[in-house]
Amino acid sequence: MATKTDPGNFFEDFRLDQEIRHATPRTVTAGDVALYQALYGSRFPVQSADSFAHKIGLRDAPVDDLLAFHIVFGKTVPEISLNAVANLGYAECRWMAPVYPGDTLHTVSRVIGLKENSNKKTGVVYVHSQGYKDGGELVLDYIRWVMVRKRDEAAAIAAERVPTFNAVVAAERLRTPPGADFAHYDWALAGSPHGWEDYAPGEKIDHVDGITIEEAEHMLATRLYQNTARVHFDQFRQNQMSPGQEKLGRRLIYGGHVISMARAISFNGLANAAFVVAINGGRHVNPTVAGNTIYAWSEVLDRAELEDRSDAGVLRIRTVALKDCPAAGFPDKDAAGKYPDSVVLDLDYWVMMPRREKRRG
Amino acid sequence: MATKTDPGNFFEDFRLDQEIRHATPRTVTAGDVALYQALYGSRFPVQSADSFAHKIGLRDAPVDDLLAFHIVFGKTVPEISLNAVANLGYAECRWMAPVYPGDTLHTVSRVIGLKENSNKKTGVVYVHSQGYKDGGELVLDYIRWVMVRKRDEAAAIAAERVPTFNAVVAAERLRTPPGADFAHYDWALAGSPHGWEDYAPGEKIDHVDGITIEEAEHMLATRLYQNTARVHFDQFRQNQMSPGQEKLGRRLIYGGHVISMARAISFNGLANAAFVVAINGGRHVNPTVAGNTIYAWSEVLDRAELEDRSDAGVLRIRTVALKDCPAAGFPDKDAAGKYPDSVVLDLDYWVMMPRREKRRG
Amino acid sequence: MATKTDPGNFFEDFRLDQEIRHATPRTVTAGDVALYQALYGSRFPVQSADSFAHKIGLRDAPVDDLLAFHIVFGKTVPEISLNAVANLGYAECRWMAPVYPGDTLHTVSRVIGLKENSNKKTGVVYVHSQGYKDGGELVLDYIRWVMVRKRDEAAAIAAERVPTFNAVVAAERLRTPPGADFAHYDWALAGSPHGWEDYAPGEKIDHVDGITIEEAEHMLATRLYQNTARVHFDQFRQNQMSPGQEKLGRRLIYGGHVISMARAISFNGLANAAFVVAINGGRHVNPTVAGNTIYAWSEVLDRAELEDRSDAGVLRIRTVALKDCPAAGFPDKDAAGKYPDSVVLDLDYWVMMPRREKRRG
Repeated sequence: MATKTDPGNFFEDFRLDQEIRHATPRTVTAGDVALYQALYGSRFPVQSADSFAHKIGLRDAPVDDLLAFHIVFGKTVPEISLNAVANLGYAECRWMAPVYPGDTLHTVSRVIGLKENSNKKTGVVYVHSQGYKDGGELVLDYIRWVMVRKRDEAAAIAAERVPTFNAVVAAERLRTPPGADFAHYDWALAGSPHGWEDYAPGEKIDHVDGITIEEAEHMLATRLYQNTARVHFDQFRQNQMSPGQEKLGRRLIYGGHVISMARAISFNGLANAAFVVAINGGRHVNPTVAGNTIYAWSEVLDRAELEDRSDAGVLRIRTVALKDCPAAGFPDKDAAGKYPDSVVLDLDYWVMMPRREKRRG
Repeated sequence: MATKTDPGNFFEDFRLDQEIRHATPRTVTAGDVALYQALYGSRFPVQSADSFAHKIGLRDAPVDDLLAFHIVFGKTVPEISLNAVANLGYAECRWMAPVYPGDTLHTVSRVIGLKENSNKKTGVVYVHSQGYKDGGELVLDYIRWVMVRKRDEAAAIAAERVPTFNAVVAAERLRTPPGADFAHYDWALAGSPHGWEDYAPGEKIDHVDGITIEEAEHMLATRLYQNTARVHFDQFRQNQMSPGQEKLGRRLIYGGHVISMARAISFNGLANAAFVVAINGGRHVNPTVAGNTIYAWSEVLDRAELEDRSDAGVLRIRTVALKDCPAAGFPDKDAAGKYPDSVVLDLDYWVMMPRREKRRG
Repeated sequence: MATKTDPGNFFEDFRLDQEIRHATPRTVTAGDVALYQALYGSRFPVQSADSFAHKIGLRDAPVDDLLAFHIVFGKTVPEISLNAVANLGYAECRWMAPVYPGDTLHTVSRVIGLKENSNKKTGVVYVHSQGYKDGGELVLDYIRWVMVRKRDEAAAIAAERVPTFNAVVAAERLRTPPGADFAHYDWALAGSPHGWEDYAPGEKIDHVDGITIEEAEHMLATRLYQNTARVHFDQFRQNQMSPGQEKLGRRLIYGGHVISMARAISFNGLANAAFVVAINGGRHVNPTVAGNTIYAWSEVLDRAELEDRSDAGVLRIRTVALKDCPAAGFPDKDAAGKYPDSVVLDLDYWVMMPRREKRRG
């Protein structure tokens, strides 16, 4: 009789070009939207009100882009990262279509790279994951790489490959929500007058607000996303671990929870950043645990026009989230690339933002 | 390059008769209803079951009256009270129409009074706020006044005015939910046999139950309402504050959270108080923080018939909420008007309640 | 003027064959489903995705069987167990029809047994409770018995009876969801290849994962179910209690919360246990409080075919939930029937699971 419990894949279980159709499909609903609202307090108007979404040409308020991300991502955990030692990075993450309540999502991954570490104890797995709606519409597309334990150090690895990918998604490859047109954007109801042309590369914004995270909150969020990584939920195990076992002593907060919190906090300064259209890369620099208060600041890295349209453009933003350290002064890595202990997230992404000229035209 | 972060309005920024159309519109859904249920445990049947609402002539179960209040109120925070020192009061708050899942709400405020304090550091701002559905239907109408900081003590104030308003909404001015008819009210399924005529002015009710509030709960609630007041969320800042800075040392629980908790607790004794139709006034007497256990007692202040109908009447209720102090004995302010430390809320409001005669007729 | 607060029924208030139509009807929505997801992290696919439910012939994803149970059960608390000293047991609990978002539930109970204890201070009340949809469709049917305080020790008890019932629901009496057909079950998307015939009586499964429970979580859950039992909510009262008063010193977690948590944890090992169709019996062996980490293991007790169908069968499962004790080693009661302190739940139930042959056929 086989063991019924899924032990997850170890490094030697992966094969190059292997395709994994992940469990569990998930219908997103207005209930998820309300919970997401309660967890982060977001105020981006397109996702908050059907009528506001109608004014920009969408059929209804789509769910928050990051809610779609978390659900698509969560499905990959059992096969990809149950035996992960570390999440090393994301790349070329693009949103391809908005998700609406009623849509059912599932995720498919392909192993695009494998590289054993020289210690023979671990290896790096590179996957290209895609989130789909039931009808086959692609909603999210990204690359992720994680360091995964080997079950057996002696196991031979058949074929290896290190994939290459772009450090930044080129502006012309960004996909914006089909049909979204900001010509009739209601700036007053959105809560801020600052449009795409008001932001310039190099500008830094202190998002001011701080939010303390509780254990119940991050666990509610992570379960909502059906992300089962044990390290987020099991305090007893943390209490029992000895220092040699990657001990944190506390439940680790899912990095995506911090991303969503930073995005919500960034409203104060980036209120018209209506859609996250891509993540170029992200690092969870230090662990976040319950009791930490999250602050954030952002830097404008780039600004690009969108082909054939004057209603909106894209901004490349770097948002740095901090724990127990207000963002005034913009705490950052030093010249050698070393981060202060207060930095928990360094996220590089593209947002779509309406332009003001159209309004004036 | 202008600062992108919204600093909020200071006292000298307000103008008499200024109209403010607040961000962020918000579509209320069944998800909000479920979260409200989970946060307070309410059992009022009209809001709990579509079929029960149908029996009294409504098209479906409306959302809790206080949920509508919190959402309408939350929108006013960024412009009105981000720099508030104190919430001084509410008056003439009336519910004008039920809110249903699917309705989108926004809020408009008009500055109806301004009065600088003699210390020149602060002033009192009086606003008349109105919550609307997208089609233009008015759902909530109230006056609120707050003490707001000046940015610059030397700033001159153009014009001042102290508005007058009624301490109690006269019964004939109350608006009851259009179409609501209690002729076929199901008393057994509602859970209590006590109707409008069973309550007499002077009667006091100990609502018995106590509920302890957790940090995660009040923050989930306050974010659900898109209320961004920093004092509810940022524990790190509280830890850093020195005694001279209005230090509480703890995250302050949004007063509306306590109102909703007291209303849910009041079910045990006021089970048939189907709708809150007005708030005459309310004071958050002492701060509430996580870990406090809330109890409540009520006093019947008045009882009035509704014109041309015998199915229901209104009761004017005073509900006093307490922290860490059971309500037996009805702890109250003394003859000099001084409240014990245990009192956190003193709320004066009108509820609509079915009459029993109709049932017997 | 009568006291308006409901004191609940005491033992001498019950009558044999008395029928109680419980308040408060409740419309179940997608909001409840999302909260249930966030509270437990369940991954059973039929309840997670409309499209997966369609593939097995259901009209949409039904709500989790235990969510329906908790809502039906919660309604009985005010009349049956407000003055309970102990929940003694459940029996013959059967799910009769799936519940979908939009359904409104209410509960009716009949007193089928009464037995005063020899100390004259308490007695045992046996009730047969049934949960219905508004149209009259029966969704849940169970027997429960509780020990209830007498108001007056001298009160005479009119008629007593101890009912008999079956320790196990016979497989032929199980009701499976009408229309559910697993012929086209998608095993890959479900996340596990193990079907009904892969499980054999005597097999034990360590479900591995551990989840720590927070105060906010169990209170959110219990209020969602409109379960008002005071012991779950009032920490101040626990602090004040003296040792002689059944003092726990902590808020007691609703036993149903632990059942739902154990069921969600059991996914890892019982992923295709698509429906809970009956509970034969359950014991809350030791109290659970916030901060406890829940683990679970299961034992297959029996396996039965379903008449005239080869797509699915039923398994009788015993799931044991533990606090602060991993399930490896299967901690259990000893030969004398005494449980270790770590065991919090011992639940005996039937699940419906697809068969693999059909797939291969």
